[in-house]
This record gives sequence, structure tokens and C-alpha cells, in this order.
Amino acid sequence: MTELSTHWILTLVCEDRPGIVHAISGAIVGANGNITESQQFSSDDTGTFFMRLQVEAAISQEEFSAALEPITQRYEMTWRLDVVGRPLRTLVLVSKAGHCLNDMLFRQRAGQLSVEIPLVLANHPDLAGLAEFYGVPFESRPVTSAEEKAAFEARVLQVVEENDIELVVLARYMQILSPEFCAALSGRIINIHHSFLPGFKGASPYKQAHARGVKLIGATAHFVTSDLDEGPIIEQNVVRVDHSRTPAELVAIGQDEESRTLTQAVKWFAEDRVLLDRARTIIFK
Amino acid sequence: MTELSTHWILTLVCEDRPGIVHAISGAIVGANGNITESQQFSSDDTGTFFMRLQVEAAISQEEFSAALEPITQRYEMTWRLDVVGRPLRTLVLVSKAGHCLNDMLFRQRAGQLSVEIPLVLANHPDLAGLAEFYGVPFESRPVTSAEEKAAFEARVLQVVEENDIELVVLARYMQILSPEFCAALSGRIINIHHSFLPGFKGASPYKQAHARGVKLIGATAHFVTSDLDEGPIIEQNVVRVDHSRTPAELVAIGQDEESRTLTQAVKWFAEDRVLLDRARTIIFK
Amino acid sequence: MTELSTHWILTLVCEDRPGIVHAISGAIVGANGNITESQQFSSDDTGTFFMRLQVEAAISQEEFSAALEPITQRYEMTWRLDVVGRPLRTLVLVSKAGHCLNDMLFRQRAGQLSVEIPLVLANHPDLAGLAEFYGVPFESRPVTSAEEKAAFEARVLQVVEENDIELVVLARYMQILSPEFCAALSGRIINIHHSFLPGFKGASPYKQAHARGVKLIGATAHFVTSDLDEGPIIEQNVVRVDHSRTPAELVAIGQDEESRTLTQAVKWFAEDRVLLDRARTIIFK
Amino acid sequence: MTELSTHWILTLVCEDRPGIVHAISGAIVGANGNITESQQFSSDDTGTFFMRLQVEAAISQEEFSAALEPITQRYEMTWRLDVVGRPLRTLVLVSKAGHCLNDMLFRQRAGQLSVEIPLVLANHPDLAGLAEFYGVPFESRPVTSAEEKAAFEARVLQVVEENDIELVVLARYMQILSPEFCAALSGRIINIHHSFLPGFKGASPYKQAHARGVKLIGATAHFVTSDLDEGPIIEQNVVRVDHSRTPAELVAIGQDEESRTLTQAVKWFAEDRVLLDRARTIIFK
Repeated sequence: MTELSTHWILTLVCEDRPGIVHAISGAIVGANGNITESQQFSSDDTGTFFMRLQVEAAISQEEFSAALEPITQRYEMTWRLDVVGRPLRTLVLVSKAGHCLNDMLFRQRAGQLSVEIPLVLANHPDLAGLAEFYGVPFESRPVTSAEEKAAFEARVLQVVEENDIELVVLARYMQILSPEFCAALSGRIINIHHSFLPGFKGASPYKQAHARGVKLIGATAHFVTSDLDEGPIIEQNVVRVDHSRTPAELVAIGQDEESRTLTQAVKWFAEDRVLLDRARTIIFK
Repeated sequence: MTELSTHWILTLVCEDRPGIVHAISGAIVGANGNITESQQFSSDDTGTFFMRLQVEAAISQEEFSAALEPITQRYEMTWRLDVVGRPLRTLVLVSKAGHCLNDMLFRQRAGQLSVEIPLVLANHPDLAGLAEFYGVPFESRPVTSAEEKAAFEARVLQVVEENDIELVVLARYMQILSPEFCAALSGRIINIHHSFLPGFKGASPYKQAHARGVKLIGATAHFVTSDLDEGPIIEQNVVRVDHSRTPAELVAIGQDEESRTLTQAVKWFAEDRVLLDRARTIIFK
Repeated sequence: MTELSTHWILTLVCEDRPGIVHAISGAIVGANGNITESQQFSSDDTGTFFMRLQVEAAISQEEFSAALEPITQRYEMTWRLDVVGRPLRTLVLVSKAGHCLNDMLFRQRAGQLSVEIPLVLANHPDLAGLAEFYGVPFESRPVTSAEEKAAFEARVLQVVEENDIELVVLARYMQILSPEFCAALSGRIINIHHSFLPGFKGASPYKQAHARGVKLIGATAHFVTSDLDEGPIIEQNVVRVDHSRTPAELVAIGQDEESRTLTQAVKWFAEDRVLLDRARTIIFK
Repeated sequence: MTELSTHWILTLVCEDRPGIVHAISGAIVGANGNITESQQFSSDDTGTFFMRLQVEAAISQEEFSAALEPITQRYEMTWRLDVVGRPLRTLVLVSKAGHCLNDMLFRQRAGQLSVEIPLVLANHPDLAGLAEFYGVPFESRPVTSAEEKAAFEARVLQVVEENDIELVVLARYMQILSPEFCAALSGRIINIHHSFLPGFKGASPYKQAHARGVKLIGATAHFVTSDLDEGPIIEQNVVRVDHSRTPAELVAIGQDEESRTLTQAVKWFAEDRVLLDRARTIIFK
């Protein structure tokens, strides 16, 4: 490879049939590319083929796309070609709790999370100082009525449009979203949700978890669909607790799991490692 | 301590109020006992005080009980005095799957689980060989009708009565139990249940878990109440899985968690480490 | 309890013998105290008795101490009486890496870590901004010669003296300490150390771990003794890695474990949960 | 695919250079094969390319090998073609402790571990009954002198030769092996070793771990080299412990980790998921 070579991420999704790997690797050889990483999965559930490649090649994005086109057309692929490490344009929505936002910003600065955050949008002003410390623009708009809620969602979609936002992260944004809003951002909006065994519905889940004496509490990062807290799961973590924990302590422990689980999900998404197979995710770690 | 001293386990439950520890430790000092282990917990939820002590004392059970009686009466305690390491008389119910039974029997023989199993009672004959290898009596009775089910439950209660059974373990016994049966064994019957985030209701939970692409699967050991799979939780474990797992593999992985979780719960119960605070357990590990 | 009652932490260490619990609980009853939490441990290794109590009592520290004195003298106890939640006066030493400091400061502000940090002392200026954001004084002094090193250590001891520092935390302070310095702070200085199976000596441990293809990497928080990286262990964590991780990624993963492990150790220390039994710790979680 | 198609595992190792994936996938397309699983890794450390494929193809082993030969020769590959699920011919060596053997045999019978065990060879007779229950031949030969040790090793090599043994498993075989013996079985002999942070050398490691108050204990499964306990690591697990554990309890807990870690390593080896990159393993899970 010359010094001018670029590291590319190529993801492909198509109907599963023989010859795909040979065809796509041929196109890559034709582009003088070298495959440095490759993962694939054939879903028995849906008959779908998924592939993620990292390729080193001294070629422009236009040239590489042109070289791939005959294959992506023949197999009717959904595909995406991107440069390794390009920061993902990410909009973060928050309310008052800062644990998830803090974790994302700290890791971004530490070079562990490749995102670019043009704005943090909040329905409370509490986290302005945290955003400011990390040099990220912050905007707060109250959401206390149906009108304000609609205005907030409209503002989100406007920011998404104007900034070419690729991912919206609900970093403990404590508002129910309208189905239209969820649909408009389908596949590019991620939420973090506390998780328990068994699951608890309704308000005060940590109180319920305490009352049932659960021994594990955790968090689930998932895509948002109109069916709240029920979209495709990206990542889950749990941690052990015991009877001596108060509901307040369970909340604190749960927040740690929420932070690391959400950041992990955003990181995988930013690295094009998350693909969708109907209601479940394929994660190429 | 002399060579004749015995190691005792003493568990106490009563209304929480000042002076309990001083009173009980005074009775122990009076019996020339030495406290070697002590755990206590005051439940803010119910105002109940829980305590588990291990005491070394050269005294008979009758003498020790008599020494404790003034205190247990004054504080209206529910209490239990037992010898450390005495095997718990345990009845195990199974169907066809042997993973939980195998784990319990192997650990019993290895000296890691202090239980005495006068009988394994099954609704299928499949596990007779496993029981025989470990020298445990095995009895199989079909449960294919309401009559047979009632007869099976009656047989269980008879075995419990005749053998002074202290714990009934549902080691993957795949039959729904009658409310009367559950009530009759309340507080001394433990079940193992697969667990997912989120929870799945109905048949084929592993298929549902696969379809939703869960990233963690686990198991919950709990007391059986008439509300199936919803009794107080004793222990929970989870293990990480990914999209490449077939439903059959999820079952295999889940079984490992079931085995170790159930055996752990039985071990704690056998060591008098599991106390009940309304709908949740206090576990003195 | 009246509204004026205080929540106390009482820790006791003495030679193990019968009657200690009765004696101490008697003194507490005498002070109209109510034991809300209690843990004890008798070390077979050293014949030492350890106890940690939380007590609710409407009494001053002087009165409580006086009430305990006959017992603590009779049993020749090492003991400590403190108020629950009192922030621990903590001095943090850092170099360039901010992950541990960030985690501690974020949790302190979030109310999850009860420490008061009068100063962050560094041998590099890099983390001044982070300290400033959290409103913590920061002082940087180069350590590039034996003289500067001696001056740095002298400055630490001066800060400890002037600020009644109770704990010194080496939050990735990358300098070897003199034996005299370690001895002067014995039992109140904690370090965080990367950990591998097997252990690797010398420079570039992550490179060695990569070369051997370890599957777990982790961190150990321990008291500092003159035998570097070998003092009594307070807490350990590990996380799973695989062959695809570069040495740089192992470093990033290891830093997460370092942060959470060190913060946990500081938290337990601040809550008087860490006692010493010769070369090992008793942790009353 | 027709009903006559076979599921194949193909592993390849060669010097890394462009075009390998295209070439090998071309040979597979030429054999009318369909790639159902594929994993690859390029080692920056050694410049080596590793690949594991699962391929569905209605073809004999000879035909498939012939179709691959031009490619394997051109790239000077070390390669292996096998049928998915073919039981691995495995020789197990044991001493007195049965936990690892029990776990392997139970999982083999449960269909979770695809091994065929023509013999369990022991230096003590204690585990004869366990082997008999699972219908596995058992042979015991004392090893109490240098002569007996040499005879034992010779017998192992004879069994390996006569039974086309593919893997020798040291399931807590408590004898030091000669360098010649290790060399003769290089790359096909796996050991299980207790593991601690920090590592402890010499006799009674659990006692040392107890004395240092370790908070994690675990196990490492690794290839055996002449440098005892230091071969390439295949799998590692740890579990949390605390100060209250006696050395005997640490042993019991450690045994659980040993069992599951060793069985996991054997399972991966049997599925051709373990490849060697100098001193470390590439594991294609």
C-alpha cells in the first residue's frame, strides 16, 4: 500500500445466495484493495446476507463506488462505503440527568468515541455547564405542553436536516416521542432503557425492582420504534445487586450501566457495526 | 472451645427495635457460645429485623434453645437453630432434562452441596440412569391427565410428609402446579426459570428471545407461589450471547445458567441463608 | 429516634474472644443507640476480630466515645467513630491520564462519592482544565530530577499535614515513590494498577499482554507499600478481550477498568468499609 | 443445496497479501459451495492471514480438496478441511479430581461437545466409576517413580498413535510432563491452570491467594509447551470472591471455573476455531 491509501468500511446487505463473497472480493481486488477485516452472517430467519469489510485502498470514494457498482447492482445490495474513523454527526437529546452525556463527551475527547456533536438539545437547562466544559453547543427548550413538545420535535428534525445528522441519541431524554417523529428517524435513533429481570412496567421501575428483590439490574440500548422501549436491541449489560440496596442506590448503579451501554451502542453504530435483520440487530464487533 | 463444641446456625426474624443484638448476644454469652459469623439487616420496607449467626458452643440443641427462649419470646421472634453442615432433606422433581439434576448430584458427591436426597420424582423415566449412578432412589409416574397430575402432587406431599422433606426443588419439572400444592409447600419449594431482558411470555421463549436478538440470557431461581414464575427471587445469573446463536444454542447456554443458578439457590437455602421479607428475599451470603 | 439523631459508623478491631458483640452492643444500648447495620468477621489466620456497625443515636461524638470507652479499653480495640456521609478529605495525585480523575470528580458531583478534594497535585499540567471544570484546586510541579521528586513528595506530605488529609489517591500518578514516603502514608494511600493473567513485569505490560494473547485484562486497586504494586488488594475487576484488539485498544479498555476499580476502592475507604488483616483487606460491603 | 450436501469447515493460514479472499471464494464457487460462515484476521504482529469458513457443498472431501489445491499451493497455505460436527478423537488424562472430566462427559452426552473419547488415562484409580457411568474406557497406571512416569508418557503416545488422537486434554492431570513429551504433542495438548491476580508461583497457590486477599480467582486453558503453564492462552474466566472464603472454598470455586473454561477450550478446538499466531491464539468464536 502507498502512503496515500485510505482505510474503508464497506457494509453490504442482500438476499443470501452463492457467490457473493467471490463477487465482492473480486471487485475489491479490481480496485487494488486489500481486505483487512471481514465479517459476514447469513440469517436463517430472513434469508438475508450481511457483510462488513475493512479495506485498504489508494482510491477515491467515487472510484471505489464505481468499482463496486456492478456487483451491488447484480445482487441488489443495500450498501454503504465510508472512511474508517470519520466522526459520526450526532445529535444528543437530554433532560436533567448527566451521566450518559458525561460518559459520551469524556470518551469523545479521549479519542475513544468517533462522534462529532454539533448540538446537545435539552428540555431542561441543567446540563448546559457540562456541554460548555466540553465545548459543545447546548440548547434548552421547555417541553411542558403538547405545543412545546411538537415544537421540540420539529426543532430536532430541523437540526437533523440542517446538520446532516446521522444519529440521534436519547441520552436519558425523558419525554415520550410521537410515532411520526420515531418513524421519521427510523434506524438512526437510539435510546437507553433500564432493564430488569423480570421486566417492570409503569412508573418507578427501580422501586418495583427493589420490592421484588431483584438480584441483577441493567440497561438496554436499542433503536427507537413507535413501540416505545421495544425496538431492536443493540447492547445490554447487567450488574449484581443485593437486598441491602435502597431504591436510590439501585438508581445510581443503574445509571452506570446506562452510561456504558449507551456509549457502547453509539460507538458500534459510528463504526458501521450495527445492521438490522427485521426486529433484531446483527452486531459485527 | 473444647473438642465437643458444635457449630450452630441461628436465624432470627422479628419486628425491628433497639436492643435486639445486645439481648441475643447476651443469651449466647450465657450459653458460653462464641459468635463466629454474624449478619443482620433491618428492612425499611417492612420494619423487620433479620439476623443470621454462626455460633460455636459446647451445648446440646435443647440446652441452647432453652437459653435463647427468654429472648425469642420477649421479641416474638421467628427463629431456627440448626447444626452447620447438616444435610438438608431435599426432594427433587424432574422431567426429561438432566442438566440441573446432574449439577446438584455432582456437587453433592463432591462435598460442595449439603443435601440428602431420599428420592428423585419424575414424570418421565429418562433420568433414572443418572440418579442410579449417584445412588439416589428414582421414581417415575406419568402426568398426562388431570387425575395423574393430582396423583403426582399427592405423591409429592406424601413423600414430603414421610421423609420430613425440608425443601422441594423443581429441577426443570415441566408441569404447572396447582395453587393448593404451591400453598401447601409455601416457602420450601424452589423453581428455576429462564430469564430474558425483556421478559417473554408464552411458549418458546428462546425462539422469541432469538427473534428479538437479545444480547443476554439468564436464569432466575425463585420460591414458587401460586403466581407462576413470580415468587420471591433467590438468585439470578446472565450470560452474553450474540446474533449468531441459533435458538438451539440459546437453549444450551440457558441450561448452563439454570444449573448453576438453581444449585446456588439450593446451597444457600441449605445453609439457612435465605430469609423472606414479604415479596423479596434477604440473602446472607 | 428523634430528628436530632445522627447516623454513626463504628469500626472495631481487636483480638478475637467470646463476648465482644454482647459488650459492644451493650454500650450502644446504654447510649440509646440503634444498630441499623452490622458486619463482623473473625480471621482464622490472625485470630483477629473485625466489626463495622452503623448506629442511629441522638448523642454527640464525645458522649458516644465516652460510652464506648470502657469496652474499647477492656478489649484493647483499635476503633474509629465517624458520621455517615462525612466527606473524606482526599488528596489526588495525577500525571497526564485523566480517566481516573474524571470518574472520581463526576461521581463526587453526582453525589455518589463522598470525598472532599482540597487539591489535585500533578507532575504535568495537562489535567488543569478538568480540575477547573469541577472547581477543584490544581497544582502542577515537574518531577524530572531526584531533587524535584523529593520536593514533590515533601509537598504531598505538607498538604497532607495542613489539610488533615485522610486519603491519598494515586490516580495514575506515574512516578515511583520512595520507601520513606510510602511508610509515612501507610494505610492511607491507594494505587490503581493494571492486572493481567498471567502477570507481566517490566515496561509496556499491555504489549506483553497482547503478545501472549490474554483473554482478560483488568485492574487492581491496592494499598501502597514500599513493595511497589504489591500492597493489600482492595478491589479487582476484569473485562474480556480477544485477539483482534491492538495494544492501543487494550490500553483504552484497561483504563475503563482502572477508573471504576479505583473509584470503588475510594468509595469503600470513605465509608470505613476497608480494614486490614495483616497482608489482606477485610471489605465490609 | 440438495439433501446430499455436506457442511464443511475450512481453515487457512498463510502470509497476508491482497487477493486471498477472492481466490479462495473463487475455488469455493467453482466447487458449487456456499459460504455460510466466514471469519478472518490479519495479524499485524506476524504478517499472517487467518481464515475459517463454513461451506455447504454437495461434494466429497477428495473433490473439495482437489478444487482448493491450486489456491492453497499458490499462497503456500497451511490448511485443514473437515466436516462440521465430526467428533474429535480426544484422549483425557486425569488424576483424582473429577470436576473437569465430569463436565466434559456430561456435555458430550448432552450433545453440546462433539468429542469421541476412546480412553481416559489416569495415574490414580479414583475416577473409574465416573468414566464407567458414561461408558468411556478407563485405564489407571501409577506414576510414583521416574520409570513409571516415562512409561505413562510412552503409553500416552502409544494411545495417540493407535487411536489417531487429535487432542490430548489434561483435565487436572497433576504431573509435570517431560519437555520431549510436550514437544511430541505440540499444538494438540491443552491444560487447565488456576489463575490469580497477581500470579502466584510455587505450591499451594490458593493458600497464597487467600493470604493476599485476592478478590478474583479464575482459570486459564492453554496449549502445553515445555515452559509449563506458559503456553498460548485459549480461554480465561474469573469469578469474584471475598475475604470470608477459606482456602478450601477458594479451591471449590476455582474448580468450577476450571471445568467450564477447559470444556470451552476443548469445544472451540473441536470446532477448528483455535489457530496459532506465534505465542498467541486466534479464536474464531
